Amino acid sequence: MVNIIINVAVITMNKNKDIIEEGVVSILDNKIIYVGDSLEEAISNYKDFEIIDGKNGILIPGMINCHTHISMVAFRSLADDCKDRLKRYLFPLEKILVDEKLTYIGAKYGIAEMLLGGVTTFCDMYYFEDEVAKASKELNIRGILLETVVDFISPDSYKEFGGIDYGKKFIKKWENDGLIKVGLAPHAPYTNTSESLKECFVISKENNTLMSMHVAEMDYEFDECIKKYNMTPVEYLNSLGILDNNFISAHTVLVNDKDISILKEKNVGISHNIGANAKGAKGVMPILKMIDKGLNIGLGTDGPMSGNTLDIITQMPQVAKIHKLFNNDRGVLPCDKILEMATIGGARVLNMENEIGSIEVGKKADLVLLETDSVNMQPIYDYYSTIVYSANPGNVSMVIVDGKVVVKDKKLLSGDFNEIRKDLINLKEDILKMAKTL
Amino acid sequence: MVNIIINVAVITMNKNKDIIEEGVVSILDNKIIYVGDSLEEAISNYKDFEIIDGKNGILIPGMINCHTHISMVAFRSLADDCKDRLKRYLFPLEKILVDEKLTYIGAKYGIAEMLLGGVTTFCDMYYFEDEVAKASKELNIRGILLETVVDFISPDSYKEFGGIDYGKKFIKKWENDGLIKVGLAPHAPYTNTSESLKECFVISKENNTLMSMHVAEMDYEFDECIKKYNMTPVEYLNSLGILDNNFISAHTVLVNDKDISILKEKNVGISHNIGANAKGAKGVMPILKMIDKGLNIGLGTDGPMSGNTLDIITQMPQVAKIHKLFNNDRGVLPCDKILEMATIGGARVLNMENEIGSIEVGKKADLVLLETDSVNMQPIYDYYSTIVYSANPGNVSMVIVDGKVVVKDKKLLSGDFNEIRKDLINLKEDILKMAKTL
Repeated sequence: MVNIIINVAVITMNKNKDIIEEGVVSILDNKIIYVGDSLEEAISNYKDFEIIDGKNGILIPGMINCHTHISMVAFRSLADDCKDRLKRYLFPLEKILVDEKLTYIGAKYGIAEMLLGGVTTFCDMYYFEDEVAKASKELNIRGILLETVVDFISPDSYKEFGGIDYGKKFIKKWENDGLIKVGLAPHAPYTNTSESLKECFVISKENNTLMSMHVAEMDYEFDECIKKYNMTPVEYLNSLGILDNNFISAHTVLVNDKDISILKEKNVGISHNIGANAKGAKGVMPILKMIDKGLNIGLGTDGPMSGNTLDIITQMPQVAKIHKLFNNDRGVLPCDKILEMATIGGARVLNMENEIGSIEVGKKADLVLLETDSVNMQPIYDYYSTIVYSANPGNVSMVIVDGKVVVKDKKLLSGDFNEIRKDLINLKEDILKMAKTL
Repeated sequence: MVNIIINVAVITMNKNKDIIEEGVVSILDNKIIYVGDSLEEAISNYKDFEIIDGKNGILIPGMINCHTHISMVAFRSLADDCKDRLKRYLFPLEKILVDEKLTYIGAKYGIAEMLLGGVTTFCDMYYFEDEVAKASKELNIRGILLETVVDFISPDSYKEFGGIDYGKKFIKKWENDGLIKVGLAPHAPYTNTSESLKECFVISKENNTLMSMHVAEMDYEFDECIKKYNMTPVEYLNSLGILDNNFISAHTVLVNDKDISILKEKNVGISHNIGANAKGAKGVMPILKMIDKGLNIGLGTDGPMSGNTLDIITQMPQVAKIHKLFNNDRGVLPCDKILEMATIGGARVLNMENEIGSIEVGKKADLVLLETDSVNMQPIYDYYSTIVYSANPGNVSMVIVDGKVVVKDKKLLSGDFNEIRKDLINLKEDILKMAKTL
């Protein structure tokens, strides 16, 4: 059956950035088969169709969260402004508390939050990623799920770099899935050895999977690279031969012009996580130089202990404002450029620009409807401005992933949100008890 | 009749920042008469009472928007990233389009947005402020409404500084109102003369009214002050003798240590408008130094062409993140400090800290309930973190101003929102026609 969405302004994010004021978009199975302004044209050749009334909303491509650790939502709002939080707080907390159950429950909740906020594809990096994969399939979200590899005994392994063994099985298990792609995520240069990084790269290459890492995020990471190798983090990774088009570099804050040239040369994808970088006082990624160089840049929330919320709408105004401020120029990064990073830009980072990221015939039907009835959404003189500067995740009224309606009238359809919420809250007591000992 | 709110976590924002996990707050007429944890105590002595179930929400003091131009919501999303926008775009647009009707319709819409977003008091600076006063009374919001004074013929006058005459009548008209306080707002140092500023000050003094101005916001303002007077904007205003406890300095970005000392000495209130300052690439107010000096600081959205949205919830994470980033320290400005600026801090700026800004017996009943059912609001380990880093204006479920419930179940009760919205959208065509000529 064909689903036809009418009464919407369609922000296509195609090459011309066409906007169709009174648009019609139709979907067959999991694909977009019509984008235009004629209902007649859309229904021709189809007897069996259903009309979805967009009620004067704004239809945008599903948003893409290029870097997160969703299961950490279980810890959200704990110890937010604590210094050196990663080593002093997060790692110990995870070591004690993270197991399959917490990962699964957190993943379900995090996915619910992403879907309700208009994220249709996410790239996750955590432990027990098989649990995240199960949760993703259940709730019907597109996931790039990368198993973490670190130089200490992690929650899901009994030895250093145990994520490699976990990951190998994990990759086999999910190959050829329509929604899920899997792979490895060596955590960071400072939590891996040159050998473990190369091994991860070889496995990724053999399986043609994506690989992601926290890169040039921490000042101590930068200092250590200089001290040990007399190279910046990017130079160091490049020297290992592990940078390529399948590499997603998260954060990428502490980079110089030469680093940017390397990232371009190797066609590395960048996840820009501005909210988390700002809250953690990590610095500002030199995004204008990176755009000038033609790098592929998408947006990420980081984990909910760092970025707190998992939707991408909240990230967009932060990207706009912080870079205008740092560049002393209100004219840089206009709103269409920001929405581009949130959609097709993210798709490019994940090498999925031919499948998702824009509303075009032939692409997967990953769509988000923003209602324009709420007080913050009017008047609309410029759709991009309204989306970037006025919208909040509460304005997402319908979400379609892979042709399936997963959110309608702001309610999750692909799962029982009350159950998901109850399961998460049930974890609180144990977490609180443990957190107090840290 | 007494209204008693139960099943809420009460974030009092009193001196001790007490939090009452299972709190009870009761209201008689327009005042808070009980804050505690005992329903029994709350109902004693009262036969006639109504229970309001807070459904495990978070009750916070009504938020205060210390600087805005709400009627400009009519122009929201127009020409957002345009350079030198104030002089090239805003002033001409206003000159042609702003009249009593637009000001009134815009004010109604802006007030609806503030109430629905948890703002219970706002300080406005615009033309035709009498229209804003009428709208405020109708929708039941607390307004500090200041008539703009400028050195050109403004939309509501036929001569330069015509706002002074308008203001004098306006002040008489609204004296002794319970919700509305009125006064004058000389627009900025660069749009006033020393004489007009002094005249505004004298009128404010005679009538014991607040006065507000854009101060040290623009680089050309700063340069002009140095060139003409060899003084910073703050030094210049101080030299005129117009700074005192009734002065609200909006923006206050380009200030040095000496300026901060002057502002402290004169006990000037500061409206910190981070979102607008960032979007306009105006710079970052040196807030840590100002807090160290003990200045009174509240938060403001600025007008909706500058800050886009009118709620204060959206401002809070921006304040936290941008200052952490600029100070290279994730530990500065913890969340309780941010909520303080949004509530009691704003009350201090408006010299209303004995009436509003915290949940305490004897204060006016200006209260906001945040629901915690939405996906972004769980889990809660730290209320302040949840409010600052996770909440959005869509989480505001109930709002009480001066004892009256104006928003319930996320719907506006004090006005017909559909009508208000329709009136605003009806303005679009004329505005668009005119905007295209600029």
